[in-house]
Amino acid sequence: MRTAILGAGYMGSAIAFPLSDNGVRVNLWGTWLDDDLIAGARAGCHPRLDKAMPAGVHLYESGQLAEAMADTDFIILAVTSEGFVPVFEKMLKVLDKPVPLLTVTKGFVEINDAIHTISGGADLMFRRKFGEAIPGWVSIGGPVKAVELSNKIPSATIFGYRGDNMPPLFEHFASPYYRIYSVPDVTGTEICSAFKNIYAIVMGICDGLYGNIDASLYHNFKALLFNHAIREIAFLADSEGGQRDTAFHLAGVGDFYVTSASGRNGALGRLIGAGQPPKSAYRRMLDAEEIPEGYHTMQLGRPYLEAGDASRLEHLPLFNCLYRIIFEQADARKELFDFASGWDTQGLP
Amino acid sequence: MRTAILGAGYMGSAIAFPLSDNGVRVNLWGTWLDDDLIAGARAGCHPRLDKAMPAGVHLYESGQLAEAMADTDFIILAVTSEGFVPVFEKMLKVLDKPVPLLTVTKGFVEINDAIHTISGGADLMFRRKFGEAIPGWVSIGGPVKAVELSNKIPSATIFGYRGDNMPPLFEHFASPYYRIYSVPDVTGTEICSAFKNIYAIVMGICDGLYGNIDASLYHNFKALLFNHAIREIAFLADSEGGQRDTAFHLAGVGDFYVTSASGRNGALGRLIGAGQPPKSAYRRMLDAEEIPEGYHTMQLGRPYLEAGDASRLEHLPLFNCLYRIIFEQADARKELFDFASGWDTQGLP
Repeated sequence: MRTAILGAGYMGSAIAFPLSDNGVRVNLWGTWLDDDLIAGARAGCHPRLDKAMPAGVHLYESGQLAEAMADTDFIILAVTSEGFVPVFEKMLKVLDKPVPLLTVTKGFVEINDAIHTISGGADLMFRRKFGEAIPGWVSIGGPVKAVELSNKIPSATIFGYRGDNMPPLFEHFASPYYRIYSVPDVTGTEICSAFKNIYAIVMGICDGLYGNIDASLYHNFKALLFNHAIREIAFLADSEGGQRDTAFHLAGVGDFYVTSASGRNGALGRLIGAGQPPKSAYRRMLDAEEIPEGYHTMQLGRPYLEAGDASRLEHLPLFNCLYRIIFEQADARKELFDFASGWDTQGLP
Repeated sequence: MRTAILGAGYMGSAIAFPLSDNGVRVNLWGTWLDDDLIAGARAGCHPRLDKAMPAGVHLYESGQLAEAMADTDFIILAVTSEGFVPVFEKMLKVLDKPVPLLTVTKGFVEINDAIHTISGGADLMFRRKFGEAIPGWVSIGGPVKAVELSNKIPSATIFGYRGDNMPPLFEHFASPYYRIYSVPDVTGTEICSAFKNIYAIVMGICDGLYGNIDASLYHNFKALLFNHAIREIAFLADSEGGQRDTAFHLAGVGDFYVTSASGRNGALGRLIGAGQPPKSAYRRMLDAEEIPEGYHTMQLGRPYLEAGDASRLEHLPLFNCLYRIIFEQADARKELFDFASGWDTQGLP
């Protein structure tokens, strides 16, 4: 069994570990932004994971995409949402026959001025070349931080899949330190993965607002926000035709838990909560090559929701509150307090 | 409107703040274990909350129960699960007519060698005296730490109620800093409240196991445990006839989030994870007057489940794992790793 992983950042590199342990031949390809990562990995230490890649992983620079993809049984896309379309198009140019695709990319993509989910955008591009649907798709979600996965800390993930041919593939990923739950719900998994990054920003803002006062004194507030975020994510998964329950499992509750506890979206939120203008806080993180995906996901997610049933936005008070903070210069403290005190107390959302 | 709060510990005292703000006459009665708390509060500083009680709160020592309960419109029981039965019986001796009851007590109680939920035990005792059901009951759940509530940090709570007469009462509790969600699901709320204390111990054990290595390196493991705990809680709520969704809202997700982040059950778990025998870790906390409720709840919860449909225990691998660690001298590290790596990967529990 052979696979090509496209993208040699945190997650693309980390997922090579269980695959390699299972005897899969892994070709890890770095994009044009990843040449230093591949060079570092070749020299014996992947700069992001801070460790050597497994011996069975073959490394390919950005100019070697065709070599990396040769005879591959399936492909794993592991780039940011902003890199997804250009990398997917490069892949399609090389690909000579349909193969199953898996991705760890989370968020939305823009193609010809229309906004799509990752799987929706991929399907559109794929059909243009092959005139048929992708023969099997997996949106990989769930609470897995890459460095921990590469350290073989017990982790559980969710594979939201389409195609009856896919579950047998999962055995090549599964390991005692990388447990796989699968659910035939690509939509729900994708929505959870995209929006948990957005809501993680608001958790960080809360930390930023309170962190200078007394970090031990706002658990109630954070729990209120955490809970409401999960409810909005479940509503969104359902409204998109996904399974509501997916939000109450690894893709939602589990992943939002870990994303809130640690990660780049929370870090962006903390900067904002501490008083930095959102745009400059975002730029500052990009300059440090730390990409808080939730920001861009929110930029596209709002018009994505508006292009569908826009009345949904009325049921997303926390999302709207965050949008005003990030993109409309609203005061973070006032917005969050107004949200908390104005919460509808009738019934359960 | 007048109320008597029975129990002057953390939560009984804290809930007096929004009630008092709303103009309710609050009589706060301390049990025979609370005389020092009442004395401190009288002297101007409640020893647990570390602040003065609101001016409108009237304080009563353990010998003044009848005075505290005089002309009360409803009663709030705010004692530990171990103190619930003796305090409830004292209350019944004084009570001359049925009034609505609310409680923040979480867990199980034992009456005549049978184990009951809090509401079930209360109903049994109440019927013995009045020959009728309690005229309205609320199990107060949700993510509210008492000190934060008394500091008026934004908080949201869930009132699981029985009786159409109850919702109008909630207006006397509601405040911009104490938002109330209500759901006619006492069973689900009680099950969530009891079991989140149990599962918080396992989150603490994970911290204790890893805390000495690198606290930043086990988010995946904790998220896996967090997620699985919520799934088991939802299963339990459903199996008891409660609403599964209650576990995915403030009583479950929200409360478990805050209980995992901070609290006495997690503290017990950390001692165990760091290598202390569970029984001595528990004793040590009791000696410090810090009661980790989850321990006692687990002692009663296991036989409670066995007395019902015992086959449910087969669907609770994390609960069983924790039980072996706490009460059967099983090795915590081995148990948790075995749990994580042995997790059934077929379908969603």
